[in-house]
Amino acid sequence: MQSLQNLRNKLLPGGPDGLLIGSSPNRRYLSGFRGSAGWLLITPSEALLAVDFRYVEQAKQEATGLEILHISGGLTAWLPGLISKLRISRLGFEADHLSYSTYQTIVQLAKTAALPFKLLPVKNIVESLRMLKDKTELAAIEKACKIADEAIRDLAARLQAGASEKQVAWDLESLLRQKGSDTLPFEIIVASGPNAALPHAQPSDRLICEGETVIIDFGARCGGYCSDMTRTFMIGQQTEKFNTVYNIVLGAQMTALSVIEKGMSARSADGLARGMIENAGYAEFFGHGLGHGVGLETHESPSIGTLSDDILQDDMAFTIEPGIYLPGWGGVRIEDTVTITEGRLRTLTHASKNAHIREVIIS
Amino acid sequence: MQSLQNLRNKLLPGGPDGLLIGSSPNRRYLSGFRGSAGWLLITPSEALLAVDFRYVEQAKQEATGLEILHISGGLTAWLPGLISKLRISRLGFEADHLSYSTYQTIVQLAKTAALPFKLLPVKNIVESLRMLKDKTELAAIEKACKIADEAIRDLAARLQAGASEKQVAWDLESLLRQKGSDTLPFEIIVASGPNAALPHAQPSDRLICEGETVIIDFGARCGGYCSDMTRTFMIGQQTEKFNTVYNIVLGAQMTALSVIEKGMSARSADGLARGMIENAGYAEFFGHGLGHGVGLETHESPSIGTLSDDILQDDMAFTIEPGIYLPGWGGVRIEDTVTITEGRLRTLTHASKNAHIREVIIS
Repeated sequence: MQSLQNLRNKLLPGGPDGLLIGSSPNRRYLSGFRGSAGWLLITPSEALLAVDFRYVEQAKQEATGLEILHISGGLTAWLPGLISKLRISRLGFEADHLSYSTYQTIVQLAKTAALPFKLLPVKNIVESLRMLKDKTELAAIEKACKIADEAIRDLAARLQAGASEKQVAWDLESLLRQKGSDTLPFEIIVASGPNAALPHAQPSDRLICEGETVIIDFGARCGGYCSDMTRTFMIGQQTEKFNTVYNIVLGAQMTALSVIEKGMSARSADGLARGMIENAGYAEFFGHGLGHGVGLETHESPSIGTLSDDILQDDMAFTIEPGIYLPGWGGVRIEDTVTITEGRLRTLTHASKNAHIREVIIS
Repeated sequence: MQSLQNLRNKLLPGGPDGLLIGSSPNRRYLSGFRGSAGWLLITPSEALLAVDFRYVEQAKQEATGLEILHISGGLTAWLPGLISKLRISRLGFEADHLSYSTYQTIVQLAKTAALPFKLLPVKNIVESLRMLKDKTELAAIEKACKIADEAIRDLAARLQAGASEKQVAWDLESLLRQKGSDTLPFEIIVASGPNAALPHAQPSDRLICEGETVIIDFGARCGGYCSDMTRTFMIGQQTEKFNTVYNIVLGAQMTALSVIEKGMSARSADGLARGMIENAGYAEFFGHGLGHGVGLETHESPSIGTLSDDILQDDMAFTIEPGIYLPGWGGVRIEDTVTITEGRLRTLTHASKNAHIREVIIS
């Protein structure tokens, strides 16, 4: 796989001469193996996938080109032999994903192994590769965006007061799946009225009423890759407050979409939208980052926030999602999935942002 | 919450005088908070939930009785002040869940804090509490089992050759959700023909054919708690090989269901079913454990396997799921969710195991 070769190019002299990868999306990215348990061991010349009984046949089918090792028991049972066989002297491990317990287990192994090895913590080595998508990955994300667009269009056409948040979430999930999404990347958020002030609310049995905001945050998944979109609706007569808040968020989002380009720091991209919301007097009500990378995971690198050190580059895929949340009243968030192509931002989700306010037809 | 009190009873003199809990199901179990990020800090007299902007309102609603702290930035920004304020001198952390990176961050904090504190790794302290369910938890699991029973009954009545694995999985998911399940606890497995030899196969576009085994492994979720069930079907004329393999697995499962009781070691429970499959000549084709605990997570304590040290007790909830997997041919797995009540095993999933073989009606 190209991803394996790219990883090997990052193994510098004096650094690890073997990498142990146990995190699920990183394992999948490097091997193609979609199972939920297993370890990759990668050296400059070898690539091995160690799985237990449940996954041996699946690994053979999916991780073509890798050697498949059928393991049983914990790391203690098979890792020392493998390190010795592959002559690894400096084993890199995923510092952000390996648990303290497993780290201690490997420390003990290193002490007792016939061929002693050093342990080197490694951070973001695979994540930084995953941040830049190739054509196949971008095509999968675009497909997931298209499904999301079609599903929210159909949902918006039939959204009515009187339905519960859970019913609307299930209706949207059905649309997404029927239009070709695999299992959804995250639980749909349908947050109405005061619930919309909770950025990560879970759908409840609350009935949606006229004159309230409804935030719907959702995504599709295709070939493992996600889309992520949010639209905010108000059913019936819009209120002045809603219009004010909505237009501030929309203005901040549209500005970010027009101005963000290759080479900009993610922090200044965030600052751009945040500044507009601050100037409108809602600084304290936009408490999360402007966006996040999207790929095999819903939240991955880059981070578009006040603390980010990332620089925006071609072939990144990420979200732009400013919001304003007013406790007791509700909230507004507008989110698109985007990428950067030949230096310029390209929006991948296209669902209407104007159709959000609908009059109730008196029949 | 009772769970908090039970946890405090486990804080022995000389052990931690404060516990940092970051794992999602443990956090939910102890606080009621369902969000996907946040930290609990628990001392003998205080219980505090630290969450970022996205979750403040939700935490206030769900984690009643706990102090909610609105944090921003990493642990470095807020943990030292809190440890100092709560006068924690021995901070316990979840060794199986805390990453190496986060552990190192806290080690550095301890070195620079005004009030130095020790770090104590803690294992299974919350998991061992979660292993024994109270009445509310068991009621939620029973409800999830009932929904699963009804859904598979309806699905079995319309299962036909010619449908793809994905279509069947979606049909079943729709039934589960319409019957009241929340978001499913795990992706449904529909594995037909040779795919059924992969214990954790993911549904594909493969069309189900007559004369092949179809393994369907699925669960529902109610109030956060899961059920887990597997049925194996064959559409059309059953083959002699299928009958042989099916009856061995069914015999092993029924025996386990009749014999397992309070006080038995999980390892001998596993051995009981495993011995029967071994005696029939299929030892190497039953490569996973007999079962696992079920609760807030699909896989939790106890473990029912060859390496388990657990003893089966009243109010545990777990699965019994022997299987035989023959590469190239297919597989059979039969799984129920069970509990132990007043010393005796009680099966919570009741879907038919006889209706699995269906004749194709020639019309």
